[in-house]
Amino acid sequence: MRQRNKPWAKDMLAENPQYVIASPESNKGKWREYFGNDHPIHIEIGTGKGRFITGMAKQNPEINYIGIELAESVIVSALELIIEEELPNVKLMNINAEDLRDIFAKNETNRVYLNFSDPWPKKRHAKRRLTYKNFLSLYEDILPEKGEIHFKTDNQGLFEYSLTSFSEYGMLLTYVSLDLHKSEYEGNIMTEYEEKFSKKGSRIFRCEVQYR
Amino acid sequence: MRQRNKPWAKDMLAENPQYVIASPESNKGKWREYFGNDHPIHIEIGTGKGRFITGMAKQNPEINYIGIELAESVIVSALELIIEEELPNVKLMNINAEDLRDIFAKNETNRVYLNFSDPWPKKRHAKRRLTYKNFLSLYEDILPEKGEIHFKTDNQGLFEYSLTSFSEYGMLLTYVSLDLHKSEYEGNIMTEYEEKFSKKGSRIFRCEVQYR
Ligand SMILES: C[S@@+](CC[C@H](N)C(=O)[O-])C[C@H]1O[C@@H](n2cnc3c(N)ncnc32)[C@H](O)[C@@H]1O
Ligand SMILES: C[S@@+](CC[C@H](N)C(=O)[O-])C[C@H]1O[C@@H](n2cnc3c(N)ncnc32)[C@H](O)[C@@H]1O
Repeated sequence: MRQRNKPWAKDMLAENPQYVIASPESNKGKWREYFGNDHPIHIEIGTGKGRFITGMAKQNPEINYIGIELAESVIVSALELIIEEELPNVKLMNINAEDLRDIFAKNETNRVYLNFSDPWPKKRHAKRRLTYKNFLSLYEDILPEKGEIHFKTDNQGLFEYSLTSFSEYGMLLTYVSLDLHKSEYEGNIMTEYEEKFSKKGSRIFRCEVQYR
Repeated sequence: MRQRNKPWAKDMLAENPQYVIASPESNKGKWREYFGNDHPIHIEIGTGKGRFITGMAKQNPEINYIGIELAESVIVSALELIIEEELPNVKLMNINAEDLRDIFAKNETNRVYLNFSDPWPKKRHAKRRLTYKNFLSLYEDILPEKGEIHFKTDNQGLFEYSLTSFSEYGMLLTYVSLDLHKSEYEGNIMTEYEEKFSKKGSRIFRCEVQYR
């Protein structure tokens, strides 16, 4: 996502601790307490400007959502959206997904969403893809048994790679659509990238996989 | 495949036992003897008019190919092609794939090809799809450990279904292309259906899976 320089972003994130969790590690093992309920926790990694996570939170009030995004200048747009909507069941974390093990204990999240993750097309960058085996192991450590990843992208190379990576990791493919917008899938919430690329005519690939 | 009525087909198949194996069950457990060599045996199920299997046999003289096709009026075209080419390493069987266990012992084949298999789009016909679990079990019983299926089709619904069916069966996805003709895959031999549908602009899906 293109990052405009937003010098005020850091301050704005800090000034809204009710939405942007300030020191997420301190909640490790206590996330149900933090939310004050027993609802499932679904996280999105690389939330971007937050359209998806906010839409999901509106659609599913009985689920707690956390949007995780590395770039301050991007996540600040997600914050603006959440402030506007005044949603109680969506939070943000301005962290690197690599640190997820410090933040969640096993079983503390219930689902991982990956939407239009950076493709890193060069083979020598495969380790950086959010569906590389090291990341799959990371998610496994914070999800329950049979925990799920829901993944969509317009990037054919990344989708092909990810299908084989999931399989090699031993995961079960429970759903796949090779043209989401022409499929029977209901309740799809578009992301910013999805809107942009589908308008250009790209097909969207989507799958659901489960640890076993 | 459209079946023109060819009353002479049956006779022609019977008159060419050097290419069309007459009673395949009698070779069960003795296929290496039948071919007179130890080369791997690759079978294609639903060979149609035989363009793929003949092309593969020419490209890979050190592999024995067997094309399996139910419809007499279709397989007879494959026979004509093989007679023309005088290839020693490709044979045909006019049988139903459901009978494969009576024909091959475990380890007697080394790879299964499925090309443009009938899609059977209705859910209630799922059992007829050549990638339904009963068929996967059938292939497993004639392949070696880690035996492979190579599958291609233009049919998106069948491909989606098959990816989940392979996964549910516990198979490993080792290769997938969601647009074969634009991929880097080399040495592709087109089938009749592939030629026809790719000319119409359909993209071709292809994967390789392995038992584990
Ligand atoms: C291509 S954008 C997609 C944004 C959004 N999901 C969408 O579909 O519109 C990918 C986003 O992932 C973020 N990202 C990449 N790696 C990350 C990581 N390790 N941890 C957190 N965010 C990451 C990037 O900063 C970027 O905003
Ligand atoms: C759609 S055609 C594809 C033909 C060829 N593979 C191609 O790509 O051009 C499918 C073929 O599979 C054959 N077939 C379907 N079920 C079969 C079975 N159980 N055993 C053997 N052949 C079968 C049909 O007769 C038909 O010729």
